[in-house]
Amino acid sequence: MSVNWEQIDECVQQWIIEAGARIKETFDQTLTIETKSSRSDLVTNVDKEIEQFFIERIRKKFPTHRVLGEEGFGDDVSALEGVVWVIDPIDGTMNFIHQKRNFAISIGVFENAVGMLGYVYDVVNDELYYARKGKGAFLNDRPLPRLQPVSIPEAIVCLNAAWVIENKRIDPSVLTPLVKEARGTRSYGSAALEMAYIAAGRLDAYITMRLSPWDFAGGLVIVEEVGGVVTDIYGEPLQLLRPSSVFVSKPGLHEEILNRYIRKS
Amino acid sequence: MSVNWEQIDECVQQWIIEAGARIKETFDQTLTIETKSSRSDLVTNVDKEIEQFFIERIRKKFPTHRVLGEEGFGDDVSALEGVVWVIDPIDGTMNFIHQKRNFAISIGVFENAVGMLGYVYDVVNDELYYARKGKGAFLNDRPLPRLQPVSIPEAIVCLNAAWVIENKRIDPSVLTPLVKEARGTRSYGSAALEMAYIAAGRLDAYITMRLSPWDFAGGLVIVEEVGGVVTDIYGEPLQLLRPSSVFVSKPGLHEEILNRYIRKS
Repeated sequence: MSVNWEQIDECVQQWIIEAGARIKETFDQTLTIETKSSRSDLVTNVDKEIEQFFIERIRKKFPTHRVLGEEGFGDDVSALEGVVWVIDPIDGTMNFIHQKRNFAISIGVFENAVGMLGYVYDVVNDELYYARKGKGAFLNDRPLPRLQPVSIPEAIVCLNAAWVIENKRIDPSVLTPLVKEARGTRSYGSAALEMAYIAAGRLDAYITMRLSPWDFAGGLVIVEEVGGVVTDIYGEPLQLLRPSSVFVSKPGLHEEILNRYIRKS
Repeated sequence: MSVNWEQIDECVQQWIIEAGARIKETFDQTLTIETKSSRSDLVTNVDKEIEQFFIERIRKKFPTHRVLGEEGFGDDVSALEGVVWVIDPIDGTMNFIHQKRNFAISIGVFENAVGMLGYVYDVVNDELYYARKGKGAFLNDRPLPRLQPVSIPEAIVCLNAAWVIENKRIDPSVLTPLVKEARGTRSYGSAALEMAYIAAGRLDAYITMRLSPWDFAGGLVIVEEVGGVVTDIYGEPLQLLRPSSVFVSKPGLHEEILNRYIRKS
């Protein structure tokens, strides 16, 4: 039975806006905040409620689909056959808590490991970035143009300071010259939004040393649909069922950064 | 003759919204982009036009006031007696060019070197942060509450990766432990906005090694009005007529960061 992607797309678009409205309603409420793997890995009652919001609807409407969700209310997904939803109810929870902005709902829908639908919803700015494989990517109703190559000295690179100081995942000397040679560096604290910014041409490259599948699943589909390149830091395809480094970039620039800084080291 | 600050405040609020509308009108136009002191120090025709927009109005309405503007259309200000306006028509020009967001109009109005009025206008989000010395600070019509102390492990610090790698202004080992010990780091690329975010409680500390007076003049008045601390990196008061490092923070956290990372080094 072939999958009706148009129907799924309609559902996601409706649910994601509804979930965004629910999140905004919580801005005046007191959050329950817990830490997970580390003191900077935070979760709130709202993350959990929003994940459950999606899972209930998916199970009712698409009972054969499986769901991999950040907060663990979904299925125990160990292989990617069939239709799998990968959901982060609030990507950028630290921003959600501290800033009440700069966070997003991220959803990717995959069929046999191929990204078919991607959504990143910047709730506060009411900006929905989305793509359907082969049908184009959009910001709200505006089609996003294909990404054009750019050189390193003209590039704005999204890179957290944590990856150019001593850390557990990469020798700080690898990316230090990129910070020097790029036009500028930024860091916003939400992988989903940072990937959406790449798709929208606001950033030229984004490098981070550890994300979980729900952080990048939605952005992956959107960025690839506009001709951006999404790999791990070594240029290898991302695995959807385990944490990974992530390197997202405009075409051309991706190869240039790999060759100039990463492969040589 | 005493200065009518209420009248000036009314004028600035009216002009800044008008200038913001003019900037938004340019989003569809082709920009003329030049470099200034370095390849990352950019200026466009819009920066220049907006500075002239303000200077014309100030000269007509307040002929005795002097203006220090980033693009050099103002006066040659070498001392701070009387009323001096310090203007950045577009703070975050690189963001303006690349992102069409994350930039701001910044204005500080000083009397005998004392900051009396401060404005940071986030044009795209239509968010005007402003303060009048002794009369409170506001985000649009909402009063901004006084900043409360926070500890380093709970703090989001705004710090560009450039300052923890080899650079001309600070030994990278000074701020590296702060990046490790803070809850998270961010970098947005507009000093005026980053200071406004401190005032609004979205960031807890902001450190940068070189700004010009027009970058920080508006934010300075706003942050101080909500009880934040604004100094150079060594904890000394900012000078308004020369470039400086800038360290902006919530109270308490400012002293803690100075003592723990900067004074010891």
